[in-house]
Amino acid sequence: MHKLVLIRHGESLWNLENRFTGWTDVDLTPTGVAQAMSAGKLLRAEGYAFDLAYTSVLKRAIHTLWYCLDEMDCTWLPVVKSWRLNERHYGALQGLNKAEMAKQYGDEQVLIWRRSYDTPPPALDPADPRCERADRRYADLAPHEVPLTECLKDTVARVLPFWNDTMTPAIRAGQRVVVAAHGNSIRALVKYLDGISDADIVGLNIPNGIPLVYELDAELKPLRHYYLGDAQAVAQAAAAVAAQGKG
Amino acid sequence: MHKLVLIRHGESLWNLENRFTGWTDVDLTPTGVAQAMSAGKLLRAEGYAFDLAYTSVLKRAIHTLWYCLDEMDCTWLPVVKSWRLNERHYGALQGLNKAEMAKQYGDEQVLIWRRSYDTPPPALDPADPRCERADRRYADLAPHEVPLTECLKDTVARVLPFWNDTMTPAIRAGQRVVVAAHGNSIRALVKYLDGISDADIVGLNIPNGIPLVYELDAELKPLRHYYLGDAQAVAQAAAAVAAQGKG
Repeated sequence: MHKLVLIRHGESLWNLENRFTGWTDVDLTPTGVAQAMSAGKLLRAEGYAFDLAYTSVLKRAIHTLWYCLDEMDCTWLPVVKSWRLNERHYGALQGLNKAEMAKQYGDEQVLIWRRSYDTPPPALDPADPRCERADRRYADLAPHEVPLTECLKDTVARVLPFWNDTMTPAIRAGQRVVVAAHGNSIRALVKYLDGISDADIVGLNIPNGIPLVYELDAELKPLRHYYLGDAQAVAQAAAAVAAQGKG
Repeated sequence: MHKLVLIRHGESLWNLENRFTGWTDVDLTPTGVAQAMSAGKLLRAEGYAFDLAYTSVLKRAIHTLWYCLDEMDCTWLPVVKSWRLNERHYGALQGLNKAEMAKQYGDEQVLIWRRSYDTPPPALDPADPRCERADRRYADLAPHEVPLTECLKDTVARVLPFWNDTMTPAIRAGQRVVVAAHGNSIRALVKYLDGISDADIVGLNIPNGIPLVYELDAELKPLRHYYLGDAQAVAQAAAAVAAQGKG
């Protein structure tokens, strides 16, 4: 039996400012830092130990991982960073305020951009200064691999090769793996692992900074999954997730 | 022409307490954190950019690197951690106070343990709780690879395979490399790069938290090297290094 631990980064500055973030490299808030430390403390208290960590190339996930590793006193752990674990790209909405967009385009349109499995938000113009194609960290990618926008379906399509080619060989080899990533790259993994339908994934949200444990059989099929933490914290997080799902 | 940047970690708790450290995993002091941040600010101000970072599996070097990467806004950089970049192992002296050891064994004996190129300090007993052979981070090493003590010659012998097998292929491929490591793993590299004799290396010390730049030709032979920073800071660091050399 394998255990895989997934952690969504703590609260970011743009979570707080209610702005669409996507691939924009926004840092954690002090609350986000506290959430990350709390995740590390929980993992340590529950006796978790890892051999390998994965994260995205965005600092809110990287910092979340660093705080976890610090709390677990295993900063020496090998860490692999991949753009494939990045948040869903939010296209031309990146940096814009969610409430202002709702005023401008209507609640229904914003809901489609936020929740639709296969309708992406409007694409970034490649000439837009927000476009990441000139960003050094993506220099090894083919231009078409750097998205101008993504729906969750697109995110699933670029997360799965990382799961299949990089993560599963490590897990099968017995490596205990922790992943610090983003709401939608984790939803992409969870959708695949649990075989969630395109319709049902819309209602599933991942709370910030609470370790999500998947127990996997030898074929890496999920046996069960659960959030770590005391019952009250988990119930509150579950309620918050459900409320977001209704949003 | 290649540029290689070497950074010795900032001041550690045991630097401050005047204790032999070696492979003991001691963290930075607030001064050490400030030194690490200052190194990152200098590199950023001087326009340095890296493609790849190397560090040891000891948190004083890892944290130094993290603070540098934060200041340079490139936490996304790939980081490879290796025990081969660890500090020289200080054997049975690890954790002991340098002044107390001098009282007990005499200044001359302590000087030999600290400075001799090929005389190691007394070895740790493998049954000593300080012995790192049971430490999870060294689980992939053969038992004989986890030292019980080291002289600088031993450190050179285990640093060079990392230079030859891992670092030089990356540098030759055009990767711009930064290394956050330790006084003696950096001295080992510098001794090799500059062809410093066994006698002369005794007098060479590396200051904490000041980037040391090596310019290398296509064959990775050093053209010149220099510390970054304003003239006064570099002069002070050089004086401190010279004073240590006389110590």
